[in-house]
Amino acid sequence: MSVAHEQVAHEQQVLARIERVRRGSARLREQRVTMAHGAGGKATQTLVESVFLRRLGNPVLDRLEDAAELVAGGARLAFTTDSYVVSPLFFPGGNIGDLAVNGTVNDLAVQGATPMFLSAGFILEEGFAVEHLERIVASMAEAAAAAGVQVVTGDTKVVQRGGADGCYINTAGIGTMVPGVHLSIASVRPGDVVLVSGPVGEHGVTVMLARGELNIEADVTSDTAPLSGMVAALLRAVPGVRALRDATRGGVATVLNEIAKAADVSVVVDEVAVPVRPPVRGTAELLGIDPLYVACEGRMVAVVGPDDAQTALDTLRSHPGGEQAAIIGRVAADPPGLVLLNTVFGGTRIVDLLVGDPLPRIC
Amino acid sequence: MSVAHEQVAHEQQVLARIERVRRGSARLREQRVTMAHGAGGKATQTLVESVFLRRLGNPVLDRLEDAAELVAGGARLAFTTDSYVVSPLFFPGGNIGDLAVNGTVNDLAVQGATPMFLSAGFILEEGFAVEHLERIVASMAEAAAAAGVQVVTGDTKVVQRGGADGCYINTAGIGTMVPGVHLSIASVRPGDVVLVSGPVGEHGVTVMLARGELNIEADVTSDTAPLSGMVAALLRAVPGVRALRDATRGGVATVLNEIAKAADVSVVVDEVAVPVRPPVRGTAELLGIDPLYVACEGRMVAVVGPDDAQTALDTLRSHPGGEQAAIIGRVAADPPGLVLLNTVFGGTRIVDLLVGDPLPRIC
Repeated sequence: MSVAHEQVAHEQQVLARIERVRRGSARLREQRVTMAHGAGGKATQTLVESVFLRRLGNPVLDRLEDAAELVAGGARLAFTTDSYVVSPLFFPGGNIGDLAVNGTVNDLAVQGATPMFLSAGFILEEGFAVEHLERIVASMAEAAAAAGVQVVTGDTKVVQRGGADGCYINTAGIGTMVPGVHLSIASVRPGDVVLVSGPVGEHGVTVMLARGELNIEADVTSDTAPLSGMVAALLRAVPGVRALRDATRGGVATVLNEIAKAADVSVVVDEVAVPVRPPVRGTAELLGIDPLYVACEGRMVAVVGPDDAQTALDTLRSHPGGEQAAIIGRVAADPPGLVLLNTVFGGTRIVDLLVGDPLPRIC
Repeated sequence: MSVAHEQVAHEQQVLARIERVRRGSARLREQRVTMAHGAGGKATQTLVESVFLRRLGNPVLDRLEDAAELVAGGARLAFTTDSYVVSPLFFPGGNIGDLAVNGTVNDLAVQGATPMFLSAGFILEEGFAVEHLERIVASMAEAAAAAGVQVVTGDTKVVQRGGADGCYINTAGIGTMVPGVHLSIASVRPGDVVLVSGPVGEHGVTVMLARGELNIEADVTSDTAPLSGMVAALLRAVPGVRALRDATRGGVATVLNEIAKAADVSVVVDEVAVPVRPPVRGTAELLGIDPLYVACEGRMVAVVGPDDAQTALDTLRSHPGGEQAAIIGRVAADPPGLVLLNTVFGGTRIVDLLVGDPLPRIC
């Protein structure tokens, strides 16, 4: 499958804008941090490039993988961190505690590492209920046991009332790289096949609804789960997997954009092939958002060579939690750096990086 | 030097109280988190034991060292984390950025590890000035270069106005254990000698004054600095160092209490030997606090065997930043678990763990 230039000729204006942003991407125009800077989309990318990479950049950090690959003491390791500021702290299917474990476990797993050790840093607001903290920590313990990792070091800070929204958690994680495996979104090439490991958008929609600000009821729970077992099974079945990414902030759409840009390829998605559960689709429609942009916390995007596609699909589907895995698209050469969606209506449109932040504080 | 039981006979009431707290230490009485739970003293210890260790405990975490010692991929590593919530973010001598690098570097160094890699997780408040973020990140870069570490992975979250006090930073760090070195506060034994690497309390007093709420002016700057170079020099000169700890939250007094309890020994400190710069002493007196409890961010406590004491002192003093290092006390067998202070007035008193929190949000 390939996409000819003429298919996107009418998108020249959009392309031109993207090029401008790309060229000017190392300049932050805002003087104040906005919610969009934390949303995982364009603004986050600009902030990361203009502030963090400019000052702290080095060959490992510059790669901006979900986890850094290191050699320490002769061992090949992966190292990652994430802060969790989800609001509300408790939601159907999970809470900030299991989220903080699964999120970091997943960042290690999709880098091709076996997650082993976590750190946990708590920032608690004065007055936070100890009973809630107990529930959160109990969930962390269960999630750690399920993922086969140990929390080995921690820290607790307390800030005055009004200085935090109850509880923030940072986890960092160390994993050992699976021998012989080298996953990188930059290695993706035309002809490759794109899969998702399950229905998308459940976590984000669940958290949105749990805020109770919308008058919507839907039977949806977070997909928060460790991906480490599924990744291990996939790497055994398909050692040549090109790249894996968990689809968190910014959802599947953001992951695909990162792949398209890193590998300088086009990713062409068939909208009809993307698994979305009916309550998620319905809620997303009511909210005017695209499920492709909604965060998952237990789903990943996998890119494999064309000959491995069926094996990969079968492996994902036979793993618990992967029953609804699907092939959702293919990689093409042109137009490089872009994600195209063949819509259910038969059209094609560009799936761009998010500019604003439709769903803040989702993770 | 030894301390006979009779010297503390008049402290029996205090001892009895301490015993009660010790026996009941795994039960949290409060239903809400208080500032004291984040102060590094007794309340923190109770929270950690009753909530975190009870649920997440394992042989590595249970040791509660400044950094966890691990084996991953055959490599002996140290792993640690700290969140930084200092207020104000900028203070004489430093800011939250270099603090976040130095603090984690130091936790690795005092564990006997060579700091190598850091993660950085930012929680930013909507509206935070990008200019301030730039200064913070620039300071992190300078501190990382000075300590010889690389920031290799990061994360940025933004919370709504009122959801954070401008900027919180979590850093986690990985170091490689120095071969042949095994530092542990539990290995401290009677007869050992206790040193500090420089004047105490400067960071805490500086931050206190920088808040501008007190009508005190004093010529004092934070001692924030990496200890990794000094630790490396000390371990070369005295490979048999028993234990090192950086004296952060709760200051030198808290470190000495942790040593006394972990090693089941008594630590006897000569107040007159503790280096305290005059403006720090004067400010602490005005505030009614003891400099021994005030956080440093570039000072450590070292415990060495009696035959190594002079070499250790000479090594510390010949290292930049260690010119005012001093022998401040000795380890005795009795009374186990307690820190005693021979005061400048000729008396002896127990230096207990802090119960409340005289200096919140110092790091």
